[in-house]
Amino acid sequence: MSVPLRGVKFSTLVLVVQIVFIIIIAFFGRYPDNADYPEIYDPNNTNAGDVNYAKYPNFMDVNGMIFVGFGFLMTFLKNYGFSSVGLNLLLSVVFIQWAAIVRGFIHADILGGEKFHMGVGDMVTYDFATATALISFGAVLGKTSPIQLLVMGIIEILLAQLNEYVGVDLLHVRDIGESMFIHMFGAYFGLAVARVLFDEDIETSSKEGTVYHSDLFAMIGTVFLWIFWPSFNGGFADDQQQRDRAYLNTFLSLCSCTAMTFAVSAIVDRQGRFNMVHVQNSSLAGGVVVGATANMPMEPFGALIFGAVAGIISVLGYRFLTPLMSKRLKIHDTCGVHNLHGMPGVLAAIGSAVLAAMSGSWSLHDRIAIFPETFEENSTVTGALGRTAGQQGGYQFLAATITLGIAIGGGALTGLILKLPIWNAPEDEHLFDDSENWEVPDEGVPLGNSSNHYKISNTHVESRM
Amino acid sequence: MSVPLRGVKFSTLVLVVQIVFIIIIAFFGRYPDNADYPEIYDPNNTNAGDVNYAKYPNFMDVNGMIFVGFGFLMTFLKNYGFSSVGLNLLLSVVFIQWAAIVRGFIHADILGGEKFHMGVGDMVTYDFATATALISFGAVLGKTSPIQLLVMGIIEILLAQLNEYVGVDLLHVRDIGESMFIHMFGAYFGLAVARVLFDEDIETSSKEGTVYHSDLFAMIGTVFLWIFWPSFNGGFADDQQQRDRAYLNTFLSLCSCTAMTFAVSAIVDRQGRFNMVHVQNSSLAGGVVVGATANMPMEPFGALIFGAVAGIISVLGYRFLTPLMSKRLKIHDTCGVHNLHGMPGVLAAIGSAVLAAMSGSWSLHDRIAIFPETFEENSTVTGALGRTAGQQGGYQFLAATITLGIAIGGGALTGLILKLPIWNAPEDEHLFDDSENWEVPDEGVPLGNSSNHYKISNTHVESRM
Amino acid sequence: MSVPLRGVKFSTLVLVVQIVFIIIIAFFGRYPDNADYPEIYDPNNTNAGDVNYAKYPNFMDVNGMIFVGFGFLMTFLKNYGFSSVGLNLLLSVVFIQWAAIVRGFIHADILGGEKFHMGVGDMVTYDFATATALISFGAVLGKTSPIQLLVMGIIEILLAQLNEYVGVDLLHVRDIGESMFIHMFGAYFGLAVARVLFDEDIETSSKEGTVYHSDLFAMIGTVFLWIFWPSFNGGFADDQQQRDRAYLNTFLSLCSCTAMTFAVSAIVDRQGRFNMVHVQNSSLAGGVVVGATANMPMEPFGALIFGAVAGIISVLGYRFLTPLMSKRLKIHDTCGVHNLHGMPGVLAAIGSAVLAAMSGSWSLHDRIAIFPETFEENSTVTGALGRTAGQQGGYQFLAATITLGIAIGGGALTGLILKLPIWNAPEDEHLFDDSENWEVPDEGVPLGNSSNHYKISNTHVESRM
Repeated sequence: MSVPLRGVKFSTLVLVVQIVFIIIIAFFGRYPDNADYPEIYDPNNTNAGDVNYAKYPNFMDVNGMIFVGFGFLMTFLKNYGFSSVGLNLLLSVVFIQWAAIVRGFIHADILGGEKFHMGVGDMVTYDFATATALISFGAVLGKTSPIQLLVMGIIEILLAQLNEYVGVDLLHVRDIGESMFIHMFGAYFGLAVARVLFDEDIETSSKEGTVYHSDLFAMIGTVFLWIFWPSFNGGFADDQQQRDRAYLNTFLSLCSCTAMTFAVSAIVDRQGRFNMVHVQNSSLAGGVVVGATANMPMEPFGALIFGAVAGIISVLGYRFLTPLMSKRLKIHDTCGVHNLHGMPGVLAAIGSAVLAAMSGSWSLHDRIAIFPETFEENSTVTGALGRTAGQQGGYQFLAATITLGIAIGGGALTGLILKLPIWNAPEDEHLFDDSENWEVPDEGVPLGNSSNHYKISNTHVESRM
Repeated sequence: MSVPLRGVKFSTLVLVVQIVFIIIIAFFGRYPDNADYPEIYDPNNTNAGDVNYAKYPNFMDVNGMIFVGFGFLMTFLKNYGFSSVGLNLLLSVVFIQWAAIVRGFIHADILGGEKFHMGVGDMVTYDFATATALISFGAVLGKTSPIQLLVMGIIEILLAQLNEYVGVDLLHVRDIGESMFIHMFGAYFGLAVARVLFDEDIETSSKEGTVYHSDLFAMIGTVFLWIFWPSFNGGFADDQQQRDRAYLNTFLSLCSCTAMTFAVSAIVDRQGRFNMVHVQNSSLAGGVVVGATANMPMEPFGALIFGAVAGIISVLGYRFLTPLMSKRLKIHDTCGVHNLHGMPGVLAAIGSAVLAAMSGSWSLHDRIAIFPETFEENSTVTGALGRTAGQQGGYQFLAATITLGIAIGGGALTGLILKLPIWNAPEDEHLFDDSENWEVPDEGVPLGNSSNHYKISNTHVESRM
Repeated sequence: MSVPLRGVKFSTLVLVVQIVFIIIIAFFGRYPDNADYPEIYDPNNTNAGDVNYAKYPNFMDVNGMIFVGFGFLMTFLKNYGFSSVGLNLLLSVVFIQWAAIVRGFIHADILGGEKFHMGVGDMVTYDFATATALISFGAVLGKTSPIQLLVMGIIEILLAQLNEYVGVDLLHVRDIGESMFIHMFGAYFGLAVARVLFDEDIETSSKEGTVYHSDLFAMIGTVFLWIFWPSFNGGFADDQQQRDRAYLNTFLSLCSCTAMTFAVSAIVDRQGRFNMVHVQNSSLAGGVVVGATANMPMEPFGALIFGAVAGIISVLGYRFLTPLMSKRLKIHDTCGVHNLHGMPGVLAAIGSAVLAAMSGSWSLHDRIAIFPETFEENSTVTGALGRTAGQQGGYQFLAATITLGIAIGGGALTGLILKLPIWNAPEDEHLFDDSENWEVPDEGVPLGNSSNHYKISNTHVESRM
């Protein structure tokens, strides 16, 4: 009777979580104030609503990345497609609500009687927060139960949002596309969880592979992430010039990154062929690597250089580092998030520190628009914090270091919690296998190695009856 | 020689319909007036074109729902993917033009010599009208010929648009995302057609099933419908505040609905596993259920509650009601539109009646913006129709009842017309089978049960030569 | 040892190209001027940034066409899906950068010390230029190596941009959706290359076919191209009225074209069935055929007529012309670009000449807005070039003729260059086969004819070790 219990446990958890969310939001969450619509309520202001036209399409693109992009990118596994796109959907809807609550409590004075506001401009921040946990999902894909994933994400989003608060609100660090606070955090948190959950059976599972069409499904995720990424990096920009720069820099960085991905993929293959894993993932590292600096005046060639470097290290990571990490460090990284989000995120953080330190050479307008805290001796304008450009660079670096620490520490701790034998963790023969959690069509055997696969899962089903 | 005849009959019908459409539109359809572009033609107005920036992206999202969303959502059947996404394309392009004509004749004074205008703001209304018939398509998927579907949609769109005219223009009812006029109408119309066309062979067909990858193709439809749905519910809003509310409410409702979908799906399964049918469809009920109220001030928790309830009843509907309806009531609902559009649509209608009846407690601004017809005793503002909040609630309910009546009556009548032996209705062995209407790749056998499937269709082909 | 050499040759080429691009852009490419952001830098201007809100969503849609649309449309081949969507990604990122450089040198006074600007408004022009080469890719799909494709596109984009310069800047011709300068050019250039590269083995290859699911993957490309096409044709419009017209005309043209596609597809099939090739491709000819005229006042029925004609000739082309061209003219057109881009492009050019010649009957405002060069005797406004409407029609026709000449001549020449035995052209058994250039999953055999396929490729792999 363990099977129905499993369903009951999951359902009860989700039901309770959903009811709690509704109660919290009923007490503390509200629509934006009418004052946010001056074009309606303020007869003297005819134009203030404009900014909303930009916000919603931006949100739509980011939303596409969360539900289409992440969902399909992970469908590359031959027997784990339902879970990839399906659990991605489940996790996202829970995490989005949780992010609304966590962000509300952090950024509104709830204890002082304030409500937190939920508007179109906030929706994209919920998606951003959710992305953090979906990145970690990639590291443990196929090796965790839905309940484990929910618990992981709920802890992670709390920690990630607190970390972001430290970085943005306390240290006054800039990270427009959140390469530190989302990509780096999500990757290293997930890797730490994967380390703690490591099991020798993962290494030897015959199901961790692709089939021809599963690789094509994954490319749906890749191309949509690719095209929408400029909106991810540009969505938070304060003015149209920074926004446009973020769009352009991200686009260019993705281009050179993708070119380098193909070049390096072919050269590290013994037969000079391209590897789908690289194309699906490393092509996107160009979006991560400029995520902390996309609004800065690096000129187009700067973005191209960032992207090219990211493409190179990402493919090399897949080829040499990932197998090594699995064998030596017992960190099994299913999607290779270290190569797509981890190392490019670190590179982005370093880049932001370097560019910030060089911001003394920018135009005064750029310096003030991007780093209002930076102090510039030769000008009459003084940032509120009186920082030099070099100091701002130091703070950027400091925030990255803190992020890394909280991510790894928090991930390890979360991994220990997930090891408790109460979360329906998948047994060995169900690693990378949908049939554990999904009704799979009887005759719809995934391509290749199929008779064996379904013999196993049928046996399993019978043994439970 | 029946085969070429079949092609000739279909082609002649489409050709004639297309030529008639062109003639009607040549006589009566025109571009918008120059006056609609005051920023160009009125030198004193520098800002009036703004609203167009919001309209077009909204249209794009809705267009994505029609062609990508509906098209791929129905590809879940293992041998009916070409028809699902292909016929969805054919039907949409015919229905869009028909909707332009029907709406033109209803809303412009054609007899008085007026032309009807076709602009960017109108395009989205054509897509809306088309959605009605695509929902009905879901109810009869795999059991009807392309000609039957064309005839069905042409009748249905005429009736649905007349019904919408009664509701919106005569009864002054609000249904921003058209949960009554599109979702309810389309679902119950389709179910009535399905009832009349019922045949015992449908129940016993071995082809009404999925394979692993067809379920993944269907998820493409799901995720795109999911992300674009806020634009569907918000596209008709009169001002930015209502639009933003519609976006947020729809997004939140989808979130809680999806969470409940997974929770209930796991608990009603004997082995505690998720069911792809539920995830693909019930997750979207959250968009339908707030479609009539998305612009109303229900606060975020209100949207979450609506969504959660919709998710629960939708999954329960799939699990218990759909098989019962097929067995007892002889209503075979291929896609389960009753669970995705029908019941959530009814719930939306009831919700709109209740909220309207409670609108006396809203801010004066909201009351006037959303129900200009509502009369409020304690204020100095009187709606043109002098209705109380309670009366407006009654009208909302009345419109829903009329919608249900016209949908069921019209659907039954249409079903009878479709039973005439002149529409190339599929014979039993061709139910849920592309090879009746499509050249299917010889060696590209769909997964599973394939040798049998193609033995049948080859025999069929030979027997016709 | 030829295999590693192959990888090295490709990688070196891409690496060198990428470094050269970065150097050129570092020297000559810059962000837009601050003056382009008057709402930021000019305190008197509160509204000037508006136009950017329209530009970016437009770019996003076009970007979706390039990476999602073209990429997946070509995945119809059963064993060539990795290459279709993968090489499409590689080629696009290289061509986008190259287009930025070529356009920069053509349109900025580089020799005079000027830099060229790269902004959000320019990004869409890079995508447009890239589309030209992707269309040609369709003609030679499966028959060329990645290196050949890169070389082809680099030559082609240079020629196509020069041709566009002649047409737009010297001859003052209008082609808003670039049906001449992109679609016609890309198609006839690609066909000329295909002619020169023709080989009897192409005709007899057993791998040039589809499987059930590869046809569904291709439909992803079709529906996204379909929905985004209005943004392609409307993106360059000068004002909102022209933009809206372009959206509406393209939408309507696609509708009637798609209806005709189904009608003609069924009638030319011996069994009255639809053909996926037609649906995937001919449905889109409606976007091409109004590409040169979408902003012109042709009224809705005009757009419907254009589309209907395009659908008819496109399907007839696939059915009768394409096999004939392959057999008689030795032009093997893998994707049938002649039917989707070639003939509809010619039709669009002729249409633009005819409409231009009739522009004397338009409103004065339209005439001036669309053809500022046209001289109109009966008005007080004189175009700078003093042309009559008829003369403008002549210039439109002249530009089309020049385009055709440069495309065919340039394509033939490029084909000869690609015949040099240094570009790793695929040998006969690797035509239409991913395993030449991609690591293909061992057990993930594509459906149908699979054992044979992989026996061949395994042999091949062994023979190289």
